Amino acid sequence: MYVRVLTQLRDSGYDVVSSQQLGGLLQMTPAQIRKDLSYFGRFGKQGRGYNVQFLREELRQILGLDRKWPACLIGVGRLGQAIINYPGFVPEGFNVVAAFDSDPEQIARPIGGILVRPMEDLEQAIRESNITIGIVAVPAREAQKVIDQLINAGVRGILNYAPIAPKVSMDIVIRNIDPVLSLQSMTFYLMHEDAIPIIRR
Amino acid sequence: MYVRVLTQLRDSGYDVVSSQQLGGLLQMTPAQIRKDLSYFGRFGKQGRGYNVQFLREELRQILGLDRKWPACLIGVGRLGQAIINYPGFVPEGFNVVAAFDSDPEQIARPIGGILVRPMEDLEQAIRESNITIGIVAVPAREAQKVIDQLINAGVRGILNYAPIAPKVSMDIVIRNIDPVLSLQSMTFYLMHEDAIPIIRR
Repeated sequence: MYVRVLTQLRDSGYDVVSSQQLGGLLQMTPAQIRKDLSYFGRFGKQGRGYNVQFLREELRQILGLDRKWPACLIGVGRLGQAIINYPGFVPEGFNVVAAFDSDPEQIARPIGGILVRPMEDLEQAIRESNITIGIVAVPAREAQKVIDQLINAGVRGILNYAPIAPKVSMDIVIRNIDPVLSLQSMTFYLMHEDAIPIIRR
Repeated sequence: MYVRVLTQLRDSGYDVVSSQQLGGLLQMTPAQIRKDLSYFGRFGKQGRGYNVQFLREELRQILGLDRKWPACLIGVGRLGQAIINYPGFVPEGFNVVAAFDSDPEQIARPIGGILVRPMEDLEQAIRESNITIGIVAVPAREAQKVIDQLINAGVRGILNYAPIAPKVSMDIVIRNIDPVLSLQSMTFYLMHEDAIPIIRR
C-alpha cells in the first residue's frame, strides 16, 4: 500500500511527502507511518518529510517488487483464463510462465501465449523456470490437493482463488482471493451501524 | 471462515467439533477459538465441544449470512461481466440486482439477467431496491469518484475491484479485491525464508 500511494504521489508530481500526508492517504496515524518505516531504516529527515522517489525505490527493493517473479497457474477453466489474461500482473513483475490442468482435453491448448501442460510436468517446470509462486484456480474440491502438490514441487507462495481455507505449514506464504468471503466479512457491520468496521483491506 | 469450516464439517457428517479441531482447521490456537466464540455467547459445553449445526446457524445469524443482501454493480466491462456471471454470489445471498455504467453505449444492454442503467439512476435504484452493497469494477482513475457516489446514494458496504486505495470515512465497510496487491504482499517473505509470514488471508 505504501508503494502504491508513493507511485500515485510521484505520478502527481510530488517530490516530498510528510508522515501526516502519508497517514491521510493510507488512513493511518502519522505515528504509525513513522513506526512502520523505522523498521527498515531512516528514510526521512526530522521535519523535512520523505523524498517520494527515494522512499518508493527503497521500499520496492526491500519488498522485492523490483524483480521478476515467475508464477505458474493451475486450472485453465473460465477463472484461470481470466487470470492469465489479466493485464495487471506483468507490469508488476508477475509473469505466468506455465499453466497446468488435470483435464486431458486442455493439454497443449494455447492460453495467454503458453501451452497448457499436464500436472505430471509440474515439478520439472517449477525447477526449470525457477517458479516461486503458484496461482490456484481449480474447483474447491481439488484445491487442497493442488496446493499440496505445488508445495511439494518447491513453490513457497500460493495465490488461492478456490473458496476453501487451505491448510499449509507456517513457512508457506498464502493469500486467498475470495470475493464471497469478503462480502461475508462485511455484513455484520452493515447490520450494526454502530459497530466500527475492522480495517481489513 | 468459521462458518465455512463448519459447513465443511457438517457436509462431512460431523455433529460435534472441539476447539482443538477448529483450531487445526483454522490455523489458530484452541484458546483463540474459545475467546472468539465467547464474544457472542456460550456455544459449547466444557469438555464436550461444539454442536456443528447449532454453532453454524448461530454464527450465520449473528453475521447476517442468513439474509439476502441486494447489491449493485458499477462498471460492466470485462471484469464487471465476470463478476455478474460469477456463480458463487447468489447461493450465499448476494444478488446483483442493478448494474450501472457511465458509457452511453452500455446502457440498456442485458447482462446477467438485468439491464445496464445510467449512473443518473443510481440513487433511485439504491433506494428502491434497498441496496446496501456496491461492487466497483471501474478503471482505477474513476474508482474514487464512483465510490463517493455510491456512499452519497446511501450504500455503506463497498467491494472494490479497482487497484486503488480508496478514501472512505470510518463508518463505511470496504473490502478490496486486488490480486496484484496480494502478490506484492508475499514477495518479502519469499525472499526471506526465515521471516514468518504475517497471517493475512
